[in-house]
Amino acid sequence: MSVDELNRITTPALLLDEARMIRNIRFLTDRANKLGVQLRPHIKTAKSIEVAYRVFEGGSGPVTVSTLAEAEALFAAGFSDILYAVGIAPSKLERVLALRKKGCDIAVILDSEEQADALSKLESPIRALIEIDSDGHRGGLRYDDPVLVTIGRKLDAAGSLAGVMTHAGESYFASGSEAQAEFAEIERCAAVAASEALRQEGLACPIVSVGSTPTAYSARDLSGVTELRAGVYMFFDLVMAGIGVCSADDIALSVLTTVIGHQPKKGWTMIDAGWMALSRDRGTEKQAVDQGYGVVCDSAGQVIPDLIVSAANQEHGIVTHRPGSEQLLPELPIGTLLRILPNHACATAAQHAKYQVIGGDGHLGPIWERFGGW
Amino acid sequence: MSVDELNRITTPALLLDEARMIRNIRFLTDRANKLGVQLRPHIKTAKSIEVAYRVFEGGSGPVTVSTLAEAEALFAAGFSDILYAVGIAPSKLERVLALRKKGCDIAVILDSEEQADALSKLESPIRALIEIDSDGHRGGLRYDDPVLVTIGRKLDAAGSLAGVMTHAGESYFASGSEAQAEFAEIERCAAVAASEALRQEGLACPIVSVGSTPTAYSARDLSGVTELRAGVYMFFDLVMAGIGVCSADDIALSVLTTVIGHQPKKGWTMIDAGWMALSRDRGTEKQAVDQGYGVVCDSAGQVIPDLIVSAANQEHGIVTHRPGSEQLLPELPIGTLLRILPNHACATAAQHAKYQVIGGDGHLGPIWERFGGW
Repeated sequence: MSVDELNRITTPALLLDEARMIRNIRFLTDRANKLGVQLRPHIKTAKSIEVAYRVFEGGSGPVTVSTLAEAEALFAAGFSDILYAVGIAPSKLERVLALRKKGCDIAVILDSEEQADALSKLESPIRALIEIDSDGHRGGLRYDDPVLVTIGRKLDAAGSLAGVMTHAGESYFASGSEAQAEFAEIERCAAVAASEALRQEGLACPIVSVGSTPTAYSARDLSGVTELRAGVYMFFDLVMAGIGVCSADDIALSVLTTVIGHQPKKGWTMIDAGWMALSRDRGTEKQAVDQGYGVVCDSAGQVIPDLIVSAANQEHGIVTHRPGSEQLLPELPIGTLLRILPNHACATAAQHAKYQVIGGDGHLGPIWERFGGW
Repeated sequence: MSVDELNRITTPALLLDEARMIRNIRFLTDRANKLGVQLRPHIKTAKSIEVAYRVFEGGSGPVTVSTLAEAEALFAAGFSDILYAVGIAPSKLERVLALRKKGCDIAVILDSEEQADALSKLESPIRALIEIDSDGHRGGLRYDDPVLVTIGRKLDAAGSLAGVMTHAGESYFASGSEAQAEFAEIERCAAVAASEALRQEGLACPIVSVGSTPTAYSARDLSGVTELRAGVYMFFDLVMAGIGVCSADDIALSVLTTVIGHQPKKGWTMIDAGWMALSRDRGTEKQAVDQGYGVVCDSAGQVIPDLIVSAANQEHGIVTHRPGSEQLLPELPIGTLLRILPNHACATAAQHAKYQVIGGDGHLGPIWERFGGW
């Protein structure tokens, strides 16, 4: 990639390194195959049809989504096996039904009798997974909660019971593959125990779905599990690098930015990427190494030692050395192009309407649109 | 507003209370008139033509923008007097020139000789303000920095010198009108001293521009200043309420959300507004009262005592009481509609592509599009 090519891009801009993304995608696809489970990638990070096509090498396949807008965009692009993995609001069931009528096999999740009752009243059944709480992270029922079987019976009577799912969101705070593998086993045990609780009552539970990027990368055994969900692995980010799931060289996403000023007495370099381009996400704040609003790389993507975006206003970033660094400040004249690696790929990507792809040949590739909204 | 009307909206959604917005707009317009300065509102918060039209009651007027995309959108809508208030990258000058050729009187800001030199080389002059650092917040030159006059001479020779500008960003951390009035005076003194430094050298300085919402609300005297900039005042937010610039009743922006679950043992209510709808901005974190990811109101917009969004995942918010609250948890069954007041209006609005207006009659009004990108 020449600087001339990058200079054609308006900064700030979201860059996507296609070769890194493809490597990340293939790694987890292979891993799921070896573990004997179906991968159901989460499209909430990428929110891009072009990325989704590359996960399945041109074909469609089972996907997870975080909004009905994502589901509608993916279905229009040929993906018909969709899990909407946010507890269903009864007011959204009409929209789910409309998708199903068009031939989209979309399933929902829920963890309450009220939601199951709302499904029971519909003109035609919607497949539903019961959400299981494996680690106290957010929603879901404990596998031994008697309400689980009550809901299972209601869904079964309505022709809606499809299985169980869980997400060990706390694995994002587990550092190293040993600790992450423990969360993978916690996920597996909770989901399998819930499926057994249903089956003991004579209820079918064909789908046992688990996953998060850290647990998908560390799981050693997924006996009893049928499918695996993960999303951020396609791009990776500094939060994942900080807990050892990937290295900085695996991160496929960066924000291209231009140096626009200096405060030399303070050691500040000002860039045109503020929180509007980087997001306000500070996922590394409580990790062993706080990466501020992102790690600074040169225009070729090489990390510049100890240089981070230490503060951000709406359209200004302030680049400084980490506290205690003994590095010399590099020469970064006004107009210099830099790339910023994100704390959290989902959040940084969401600040942008499109990806500028860097092709596998290292040259500027196409623009890929993102979809947003709800 | 009936709940039936709100139920027609897909949640999460960004609501804009037009009556509150108009009240906020009129207040600062009157204040600028009394202070004898031209108001040049910053459109970076609203990013909406419809809002900009209402600031000037149907006509166009002088505006401030944070991106060239904003400038282009506003010019297309009839606004021709525009200040692009982020230090200019030389690579963006072509785009500024293209706007000027179409008749847009857009000005840029800068604080270095390199930037002034880049302006000097252009085929036709671009008006520029020299950025002054009044409070150490981010960019700009101190008013007594000898480089100020050097830059002034370069711009003057190029036919580009339009004046000086400053922004007391540190005023956001000043609580109460006394402390904010001190920042207003710091802004005024720095900008006026810089204008005098230029004039002493025989350089013209027609524009002396200052502003931030806290200083615009607290300034007692703006002698020597010609124009005042502010943006967030149109909508207000919890950060501004936290330092006493407004009250919660002045906040025109909220996120409509639906209850989607509970974890009763933990006192958690789950909503379908996560950080994707609320933003990751935690501007109140270091204020006297930490408002989490936002203050919870009922569907009519009434604050529910002590209830905040205490945690957020991508599409999930967790509503709890503040630590130490003695309030009883209200009944919030699945499907209940709530409104969340934002920490930072600029950041929360940026997560959405449109506003659902609540009209002055209290009923659902039109949809207003937002523009984004760079």
